[in-house]
Amino acid sequence: MSLIVVGSVAYDGVETPHGKVDRMLGGAATYIALAAAYFTPVKLVAVVGDDFAQEDYELLASRKIDLEGLERIPGGKSFFWAGKYSDDMNDRTTLRTDLNVFADFNPKLPASYRPAPYLLLGNIQPSLQRGVRAQMNGVKLAGGDTMNYWINDFRPELLQTIREWDFLLINDSEARLLSGEHNLRRAAAKILDMGPHTLVIKRGEYGAILFRRNGHFMAPGYLLEDVFDPTGAGDCFAGGFIGYLAGRGVEASDGEIDIVELRRAVIYGSVMGSFCCEKFGVDRFRTLTREEIEARYQEFQTCTSF
Amino acid sequence: MSLIVVGSVAYDGVETPHGKVDRMLGGAATYIALAAAYFTPVKLVAVVGDDFAQEDYELLASRKIDLEGLERIPGGKSFFWAGKYSDDMNDRTTLRTDLNVFADFNPKLPASYRPAPYLLLGNIQPSLQRGVRAQMNGVKLAGGDTMNYWINDFRPELLQTIREWDFLLINDSEARLLSGEHNLRRAAAKILDMGPHTLVIKRGEYGAILFRRNGHFMAPGYLLEDVFDPTGAGDCFAGGFIGYLAGRGVEASDGEIDIVELRRAVIYGSVMGSFCCEKFGVDRFRTLTREEIEARYQEFQTCTSF
Repeated sequence: MSLIVVGSVAYDGVETPHGKVDRMLGGAATYIALAAAYFTPVKLVAVVGDDFAQEDYELLASRKIDLEGLERIPGGKSFFWAGKYSDDMNDRTTLRTDLNVFADFNPKLPASYRPAPYLLLGNIQPSLQRGVRAQMNGVKLAGGDTMNYWINDFRPELLQTIREWDFLLINDSEARLLSGEHNLRRAAAKILDMGPHTLVIKRGEYGAILFRRNGHFMAPGYLLEDVFDPTGAGDCFAGGFIGYLAGRGVEASDGEIDIVELRRAVIYGSVMGSFCCEKFGVDRFRTLTREEIEARYQEFQTCTSF
Repeated sequence: MSLIVVGSVAYDGVETPHGKVDRMLGGAATYIALAAAYFTPVKLVAVVGDDFAQEDYELLASRKIDLEGLERIPGGKSFFWAGKYSDDMNDRTTLRTDLNVFADFNPKLPASYRPAPYLLLGNIQPSLQRGVRAQMNGVKLAGGDTMNYWINDFRPELLQTIREWDFLLINDSEARLLSGEHNLRRAAAKILDMGPHTLVIKRGEYGAILFRRNGHFMAPGYLLEDVFDPTGAGDCFAGGFIGYLAGRGVEASDGEIDIVELRRAVIYGSVMGSFCCEKFGVDRFRTLTREEIEARYQEFQTCTSF
């Protein structure tokens, strides 16, 4: 069950209390695709410059990620972001953002992508997200991410965009900003009135909450002994969540959906987010196996059942 | 299965975004006792002045809380604390602390209290906590709370005290301070080396984690729609936790204990802490029924199982 992933493929410079890497593969779509690819075939839509390294291309290709939609701009440079984390890694400061070729990103789906049933829209301009959705035919489940910048400065476009989504995956501060409510339960109720029948609020180390009109599900965060680099953890959560649902062929009809599968998807999201933090950048995914994923899923069960 | 509760019985002045009360019944031991009394018979050890109101005495007595150990100092004034919460209620500022009769609190157990099998020591000077433990004979399960002041300035006494405890119930910042480790999994491992075989780390709205040498259990926080006053929520957690264990007659032998009952105790702790926040001070406990407690426990199960 093919999943289309749209968003940034980039290079990151990251400093955490555990070390510093000046330039490594990053970007939301990279993390989403790598995480989702453990569960389902992924087709990537992104743009890079001709500085995009062959080894990074090969890493994605080795996961059977379809790269027909990875546009390469001759003479262009890939999106570059650099940031530094605080000592407890709960805050980060952006040191540099060079949009480069990403500034003109206008995602176009190859013909072979259009009939795909699953769509995950990474955090990009809301009308671009909407344009991607419009290029597809036969979507069974679509949703995505956004951020404070779009919520504040592109609110009408954003509202128009998410009205067509099945699910929205955002963090707690974004949920508060979007709804104007501090309390998450009230915030969720307002957001579910904006269109999506499913809302996942990510709370970093504290886990995530899945909201539906008739109830919610709370997943704790996995208790890691060492967090090396939290970059991309939220995107890996998204990748695990939608990847699992796509792999299982879960679909929504009139907003109705298998709630047990949705809950499992949240746990797989948490699992993938937790692995992401164990090494710098995407390094953990160079060795991670499906067996390790299943073992951690079982650990979640053991650590939460009563 | 009688439970001894030792700590402060006080008057509080509290201001939250939802209102302001100049003077109402408060104190850690009050909250612990009221919460625990839903599950097991409670015997209170505390000190008040002769300003302690008859109606407050009657509230405690109406819950069958044994008040033989509630010392009343003629001419003395009860402990008074006043605080104001921030808009999101995640921070609070202490406006006033008048220790009054609590400054000379030296808990002495009535003879009828000494054979009680369960002991919960609220946050008081560690050597006083130790003195209470020494007055008891036949304790099956003992533990308690502490705070940053004792951890920083009375560390040797505190370490000597908790060495004799079965469980320690503290919040995340106290666990970090006590262990010198930021990561909670590492912090817990160090604290479990200090004596207690069971550690519960409270994380406020994010729930709680139960740590044992061979594993841990994570409980999310109950998602309240309105938090009126978080004062006492951590103490009500403690009361629900130990109250449930006492009511079920759970005991530890060589550190071995029924892990399923421990997990349930953590959920009952979360349930009692959540109810506490729904009204000002102890008001929620004036009407709360055991049926409402069971219903919320079931809600926890529904919201967390997958």
